[in-house]
Formats: sequence, C-alpha cells, structure tokens
Amino acid sequence: MPDLAYLNGKIMPIGKATVPIEDRGYQFGDGIYEFVASYAGRLFMLEEHLDRLERSMGELTFDAIAREDIKKAILELFEQSGYPRAGIYIQISRGVAPRNHAFSRGMSPQFVMTIRAVKELPKSLRENGARAITVKDLRWGRCDIKSVQLVPNCLAKQKALDAGCDDAIFVSDQNVVREGTSSNLFIVSDGRLITHPLTHNILPGITRLAILGICHSAGIEVQESFFGIEELYGADEVFLTGTITEVLPIVRIDDKPIGDAAVGPITRRLYALLREKALADTPA
Amino acid sequence: MPDLAYLNGKIMPIGKATVPIEDRGYQFGDGIYEFVASYAGRLFMLEEHLDRLERSMGELTFDAIAREDIKKAILELFEQSGYPRAGIYIQISRGVAPRNHAFSRGMSPQFVMTIRAVKELPKSLRENGARAITVKDLRWGRCDIKSVQLVPNCLAKQKALDAGCDDAIFVSDQNVVREGTSSNLFIVSDGRLITHPLTHNILPGITRLAILGICHSAGIEVQESFFGIEELYGADEVFLTGTITEVLPIVRIDDKPIGDAAVGPITRRLYALLREKALADTPA
Repeated sequence: MPDLAYLNGKIMPIGKATVPIEDRGYQFGDGIYEFVASYAGRLFMLEEHLDRLERSMGELTFDAIAREDIKKAILELFEQSGYPRAGIYIQISRGVAPRNHAFSRGMSPQFVMTIRAVKELPKSLRENGARAITVKDLRWGRCDIKSVQLVPNCLAKQKALDAGCDDAIFVSDQNVVREGTSSNLFIVSDGRLITHPLTHNILPGITRLAILGICHSAGIEVQESFFGIEELYGADEVFLTGTITEVLPIVRIDDKPIGDAAVGPITRRLYALLREKALADTPA
Repeated sequence: MPDLAYLNGKIMPIGKATVPIEDRGYQFGDGIYEFVASYAGRLFMLEEHLDRLERSMGELTFDAIAREDIKKAILELFEQSGYPRAGIYIQISRGVAPRNHAFSRGMSPQFVMTIRAVKELPKSLRENGARAITVKDLRWGRCDIKSVQLVPNCLAKQKALDAGCDDAIFVSDQNVVREGTSSNLFIVSDGRLITHPLTHNILPGITRLAILGICHSAGIEVQESFFGIEELYGADEVFLTGTITEVLPIVRIDDKPIGDAAVGPITRRLYALLREKALADTPA
C-alpha cells in the first residue's frame, strides 16, 4: 500500500512527480483542487467532489478534461494504492505556457494527484474539542472556487498554531463569520444550526452538504444565514466540517469558552451520523 | 543568447526545469516573485527589486536566502544568456513538503528563474495609447506582497483582452481606483500627478518608485492619495507603470475617452525621462 502520485496519466512515487516551472499552477496559482477520502475501501461522496471540480474548472474557464477520464484516473490510483482509508489530493492547473497573465484557450490542463493513508485527527481533539482564533478574512473574493489561492489560509492556520490553537476562523470586515482555513463552520443556538449561506465568500463544502442532508433527515433545523462574532462567542456549540475534519467541535474561541467549553450533544450526534453515512455509503 | 532557466543553483534550458508537485508554490501559491529587466546590457534597479524580494519573503515568513546569493545567481544567469535587453523572472517558494496548510520553519525555499529577451510592447500602443476596462478588485488583502496569488489578475487581464482592450484597472468596493493587473496607475489632473498611496492593497512598484524620483527631480507635483472612478474618467491623462509596461498611456477607459483620447504631454515626457534613466543608470 504505497503512497503514490499521478501525473497526466502516469502513476509513480510521489518524489518522482514534477511539473514544469512554467505550469501556470506554479507561476499564478492558476489551479484548482479537491481532496477526497475513502472509508473502509470506498470513496465518500466522489460524485459531489467531481461536481465541484467541474464547477471550479468552469468558473476559471479552464479547458475541460472529461469527467469520466478524471473519475477513471482517481479510481485507478485508489485501486493501485490499496489504502482502505485513503486521502486523494487532486489538482488541475490551466496548463503550461511562457509566463503571461493572459491565457489562450486550447491549453492542456495539467492533472496531478497524490494518495496517502489519511492521518486521522488526534482522538483527544475529537473528545475534548479544539481551540480556534478569529482572523480578518483577507482572502480573495471568489472563495467559492476551490483554487490554490491559499496563502491567506496558510498564514491564518499557522497563526492559530503559533497561538497554541488548532484553527483560525475567518471574519469579514463587516463582522460576518465565514469559515475555517480548510473547513466550513456551524454554530448551534437554541437547538438550531446556523451556517454561512453559499456566496462567493465561502467554499461550498461537501461535508457541509452532507451535514445539511443529515440534518434534514434527522429533523434538525438548519438556517443558512449570516451571523457575527457575538453570535459565534455566544453559541451553545460550534463545529467545523470538512473531508478530514469531518465534524470537529470547537470549545474555545479567542480564549473564550463556547457553552460550557465541552463537546456539545448536537455536535456529537452529527459526528456519529456523518461517520455512519460515510461507512454505509454505496461504493463509487 | 539562449532562453535559460535557473533551478536551485543549476542553469538549464527552460523546458528541462521542473519542480516537485509538493512544492508549496504549486499547491498553495505559496511563492513570491520579481521581474527584472535590463537595458543595453545593464539590469535596471536591481537593488530595489532585491529589497522588495526580501520584504516579500519576510512578510510571508519564508526562511531566508542570503541576498548576496540571490544577486549572484541573477548576475550569473544574466551573463550566461547574454541578452542585452533581458527579462528575468525570479520566483522563490516556501519549500517542498507533504501538503499541509501549516508550515514548519527550517524549510528550504525553492529558487527558480527564467531569462528571455524582453518582448517590447507594440509601438502603436505607445504612440496611440492603450484601452482599459475597470473591474471590481477581488484580490486578497495583501497585494503589497508580490506573491503568486495572481488568479484575479489573470482573469481581469483576460477579460480586458476579450473586450478588445489592453488591460484592466482594479477598483475597490468603496470606489477606490487601485492599479492595473501588473502595473501601478497614475492620473494627471491640472498638471499634477495622483497615484494610490502605498497600502496593503497595491504593489509597491519599482517603476512607480522611479517615476516618483523622476517627478521630484523634474519638479512635477505628485500626490499619493485615494481617488474614485469619476476622477479617473475625468483625468487629463492616465498611465500605467511597470517593468515592461514602463510608462504606458491609457486613452480610453470603459469606452470613455480620457482627455482628448490621445497620448498626453506629461505621460510622453515621463516615458522619455524613464527611458533616459534606464539607459543612463550605472551597472548593477
């Protein structure tokens, strides 16, 4: 079960996979990505990830790669690695050309992947909850596109770690609480979930989507609406959602306790329901 | 006089230069860059470009590469290519590591360059002036760092070309006119220059700096202050500045004529003074 890379049709060790320095992904961050995980040998919500991948490419007007070809390559890499609990990073860049901000149509997108075993979050974090800081949202205006324009996310994540916390939460200049550095954010207030609506300022998360579906089935009320930092601090529960994050309780934000600073019952329930769904889902 | 690449100490043909797919420059756009040009065999304002390069690396908390080593490598590549009018693209990324938003200190930055002959802008563009569109500034909040977070710049530039124009001008949500997609912007109003002050929202351009110096010497008044789209449309002259752009007149914006839609006298004079300075400057 080796770690592997995929590079435009070929599978190889990760250390052997290189891209030209004039790949626009390198010189402009002109690339989009997905991260798909498997549970017990089955890729979770692959079609939803492919939907978003296609949308990201479309929004950036990349030349198309056929969805079936992408899917086939993912499945081949997944099979060759043999990891039952795999994390597949998929990146597609616009193509390779002498450096120029403008781009021609008819470029060949570069298609790269890596596969490794998923590094699970520490159990203590899931049991005791994570700590977060809030940071000013300095990201660009199209965070709905899953692009590699990720420097502000990296800086915010590192700032959180340097402060002895686990993640950072982006808050806009207008005091709108948005999301984590690689996850969406939900708050629980009076038994009801609230999360930022899908705009250009947050990622349309696949786990977010799964949670909305789970809540619908379970009769848990969810409101997609804007909220400020006071509502964040004053929430009964706060959690992040993402492919590896799954449902991660946040129990302290900016050193203030959320609720009684312990993992709340709704967060705990949604985590269990998400795991159940992930393990029950039919094969891709 | 071949086109060449430089890759962590080695000089090679551009097509041979590749970086690992887990270079953070590729997966996060976690890289910074400079573009330096020579005139008649001499690199123009190299020290100022090195100042900015060091600042960009510092702001993103990259591990340092010694300035003298960077300078030595640039001069070596410049000498080997032999182009009297060369354009050197310099990119440094934080380093290579398995994908993780957080980064450790003590990474080895990746140092990459290309050198080619400068493609001069068409003479007709300099003589007749360029056309621009305005676009909403969707870039991230640290455009003062010369990073490869450039997708919004690429999309704006392409939008301008698709509209039959030459460049796009970023305007903020609060109606502040900022700069071009790879250049700073000046307007001329009642014989006085106005340009956006140095904030986190524009690049501290080296040619902008040269123009400020030239104006100081020539007794041309310059005001660094914010202005809106009405002042842009109503200006007597508008021009862009940049390493290849030099001083480029803009004569139509959003299909409205600027002044009498011809290249103005101050723009013309500053272009001549910049070329004079570039050709007179002492060797690096």
